[in-house]
Amino acid sequence: MQPLVLYVLDLAADGAFERCVRRVEARDAVLSVTDLSATRGDGVFETVVVIDGTPQALEEHLDRFARSAALLDLPEPRRDLWRHAVLTAAADLGALRPRAAIKFVLSRGDEAGDGAGTGWALGFAPSAPPAAPPAPIDVVLLDRGYRHDVAQTSPWLLQGAKTLSYAVNMAALREARRRGAQDVVFVSSDGFVLEGPTSTLIARIDGAYVTPPTDLGILPGTTQADVFAGLRAWGEQVATRRLSVPDLLGADAVWLCSSTRGAAAVRSIDGTPFTVDDALTARLRDHLDARKK
Amino acid sequence: MQPLVLYVLDLAADGAFERCVRRVEARDAVLSVTDLSATRGDGVFETVVVIDGTPQALEEHLDRFARSAALLDLPEPRRDLWRHAVLTAAADLGALRPRAAIKFVLSRGDEAGDGAGTGWALGFAPSAPPAAPPAPIDVVLLDRGYRHDVAQTSPWLLQGAKTLSYAVNMAALREARRRGAQDVVFVSSDGFVLEGPTSTLIARIDGAYVTPPTDLGILPGTTQADVFAGLRAWGEQVATRRLSVPDLLGADAVWLCSSTRGAAAVRSIDGTPFTVDDALTARLRDHLDARKK
Repeated sequence: MQPLVLYVLDLAADGAFERCVRRVEARDAVLSVTDLSATRGDGVFETVVVIDGTPQALEEHLDRFARSAALLDLPEPRRDLWRHAVLTAAADLGALRPRAAIKFVLSRGDEAGDGAGTGWALGFAPSAPPAAPPAPIDVVLLDRGYRHDVAQTSPWLLQGAKTLSYAVNMAALREARRRGAQDVVFVSSDGFVLEGPTSTLIARIDGAYVTPPTDLGILPGTTQADVFAGLRAWGEQVATRRLSVPDLLGADAVWLCSSTRGAAAVRSIDGTPFTVDDALTARLRDHLDARKK
Repeated sequence: MQPLVLYVLDLAADGAFERCVRRVEARDAVLSVTDLSATRGDGVFETVVVIDGTPQALEEHLDRFARSAALLDLPEPRRDLWRHAVLTAAADLGALRPRAAIKFVLSRGDEAGDGAGTGWALGFAPSAPPAAPPAPIDVVLLDRGYRHDVAQTSPWLLQGAKTLSYAVNMAALREARRRGAQDVVFVSSDGFVLEGPTSTLIARIDGAYVTPPTDLGILPGTTQADVFAGLRAWGEQVATRRLSVPDLLGADAVWLCSSTRGAAAVRSIDGTPFTVDDALTARLRDHLDARKK
């Protein structure tokens, strides 16, 4: 990835946006080693795609950002300030690249500081342009270790929050590569299909498009939601319901959805092959790229 | 906490230590927002206590540091370099404070960088001097969500590694405070007693001092190990074995051990009271402070 544009937020200030948002060099060191992002993974984030200077599904990402912050007992993000920061970075990015992304991050702040959080919005481009169309991916199922209901029974496990503590997600992706695959679908310890480390799952089963429900402690997928909106508009049947592993392996086709990759077609899961529906995958990509909001 | 001394390691360089370790201002911003410590909690750390310029149990901490790095598929830390960095920072600290601590951290490096990790050693002092003797603590039991055997079945869950992804540990401590307690003992989803978010448990049961085994996916406790060494030298019986919750609640006395706090006496767990053995707690503190290695 190539950092292009960086804005740092002053979360202790109030008043005019201009006073609270400051552009710095994208590769500058701006974090101390006592920032709780770096020492505890104690913060939340979102990544939005930016096309021609417009961040996609920004309001949905801001919704989820606030939801993650609440799950971590962080102060409620000042929504108008974060929107301003992302839109400002997006406008700058639009002059540099037709397609880029912004990651925005809120950490609990500096361990040695005044208790105000640390915030930033980084505009970046992938190092290499993605293949078009992207190659279908091979996926492995990995145990997430938690029962399907821990988000209800044990909220301190932070399931359903998009936190900076992603070491397990990164380790799962390394395990996938060790097994010759490119991605992961997590399964609860009691056998429910969950999500990928950085994606939401959609399976086509008996002609209907199905995604697992967020009460399983998974993230509400912003891209998945927009895919469902498109499918609904085209007269397709969509559903949110629990899937067992046999349900998933019995699907006709599967996609993993995320902001930066869109809807990625899955070629196999643990060796079980699926239909790769190139036509629908391309139509979904065009639909997502046309969101412009 | 008060940052006092900061050394940054150049992990891409080799050769003389002097070329690889550089002192900077302790509060300086030295991390970019693309460092994987800050974006993914993707790294490992250790904290050692420093008394009169000498880090305590440094070799044991270096052992665990290497073990954590291996669990995360990080390059093996160059042990002599890390030892040098910690000893150098400790010598500086010794001139400033009789008692301080060093946190040393290895992250996977910068997402936008050359693949070399990022490393630092931060010497710091607690903001307020600790109470002497520290007050006994009230503790709650919280579900860790994992079965006792996930370290064997699902190594990508990184149980037993001391990683930067500590958001769940921090959330558990907040939950404890909500419940009027100061600390947590985690329990596996199938009922085995594990460890605290930042500590190792020792329970006195039928006159023997017992700690849970690391095959439960918990950290090997450096302070617990030195406590056991002291107890053994004094003719006490020590044991490493699995404990159920009823085993723990039936204990006579309980301690939570960590580098910065030493052996903290537990006054209650979920309201069940324990003997607070002030004499032994003080003897353990003196034993730990006298390690000098």
